[in-house]
Amino acid sequence: MKDSDILQRLTEVLESRKSADAEKSYVASLYAKGLDKILKKVGEESAETIIAAKNGDSKQLIYEMADLWFHCIVLLSQQNLTPDLVLKELERRFGLSGIEEKSQRQQLKD
Amino acid sequence: MKDSDILQRLTEVLESRKSADAEKSYVASLYAKGLDKILKKVGEESAETIIAAKNGDSKQLIYEMADLWFHCIVLLSQQNLTPDLVLKELERRFGLSGIEEKSQRQQLKD
Amino acid sequence: MKDSDILQRLTEVLESRKSADAEKSYVASLYAKGLDKILKKVGEESAETIIAAKNGDSKQLIYEMADLWFHCIVLLSQQNLTPDLVLKELERRFGLSGIEEKSQRQQLKD
Amino acid sequence: MKDSDILQRLTEVLESRKSADAEKSYVASLYAKGLDKILKKVGEESAETIIAAKNGDSKQLIYEMADLWFHCIVLLSQQNLTPDLVLKELERRFGLSGIEEKSQRQQLKD
Repeated sequence: MKDSDILQRLTEVLESRKSADAEKSYVASLYAKGLDKILKKVGEESAETIIAAKNGDSKQLIYEMADLWFHCIVLLSQQNLTPDLVLKELERRFGLSGIEEKSQRQQLKD
Repeated sequence: MKDSDILQRLTEVLESRKSADAEKSYVASLYAKGLDKILKKVGEESAETIIAAKNGDSKQLIYEMADLWFHCIVLLSQQNLTPDLVLKELERRFGLSGIEEKSQRQQLKD
Repeated sequence: MKDSDILQRLTEVLESRKSADAEKSYVASLYAKGLDKILKKVGEESAETIIAAKNGDSKQLIYEMADLWFHCIVLLSQQNLTPDLVLKELERRFGLSGIEEKSQRQQLKD
Repeated sequence: MKDSDILQRLTEVLESRKSADAEKSYVASLYAKGLDKILKKVGEESAETIIAAKNGDSKQLIYEMADLWFHCIVLLSQQNLTPDLVLKELERRFGLSGIEEKSQRQQLKD
């Protein structure tokens, strides 16, 4: 599956969980507990990502960052937003940020 | 630009910054300051994502989450890892998580 | 200076900063920027505390935790609360938590 | 109980938990799980403190900050450090920070 398909498919699955039984789906249980619970998970997984990176353990880092991104995407979904909005924002910044642009112009000159 | 192309292109740009001048590129300055500085940014942007969500400001939320993901991808790059590893981990979990799978089976039965 | 005096004196200083010039006092500048800026600092210093602990550097850990507690107390002050309320809450929990109490009873029996 | 006595007493209790049964004491279970588990709790409680502050709920804020400080003090204890070192660091900074000192001088002149 291509990267973009993974995010698209994940978004669809999260959307479908909005009508799922909170006792049977972890995501549905997060929606049911509400925004604060989802944000708590974002904070928790961020700390675990930092700890994994300090442990110098690549496998653990990938695992914890997947947890962080997953809960970020649940947050977006709960707010009726989608990950492609975040990616478009990242795209928009390229060549727009003063520092990045200066660096790119510099490279063109070199 | 398609979503997968954005992450791929971002990865390439971050890779190219490894040889850039730290005074001219923000990313090169992060690499130069090292892992702890990048992790500090991950923690900081995570807090800003939480604050933005509590403000109920979609535009601010997208902006801060882009900052969070950006610094996550800088972290991956600094560790010689790539975002597609995180996406593959997300893909791997689908249909594997007990709760998710049970929910899917439940939906098939309904 | 005794520990309790330090927190009491810090609380008084932070209170006095509410009428200070934001250009001359860091604390006054935090008050002026408002709640979100203070919370961002709490998140940032929390990440730095975690990083310092992983570095196994006691001096850095004490330094970063002082930063974290300082911004926590600024947060309390901005909300017209005081650190002794947090300490009273910690006191209240002793002997109340089931696990702690069970452990204490166990020790009495031993 | 005076504030300083609360921190002192808490420190003593945490120290005594180092020889307690991890199945009977929450603190002993944290020690047994090790540094990363304690740091994860610091990150988690920091996020909950931010969320409580955004909710504008004073009682919840005091509760979550007590959780945050508690796990900070467990961290210190696990590293064979004590909260008075953090308070001494806070004391040391008073009158030393350029901005604070300038502000204090300014107040003396006013």
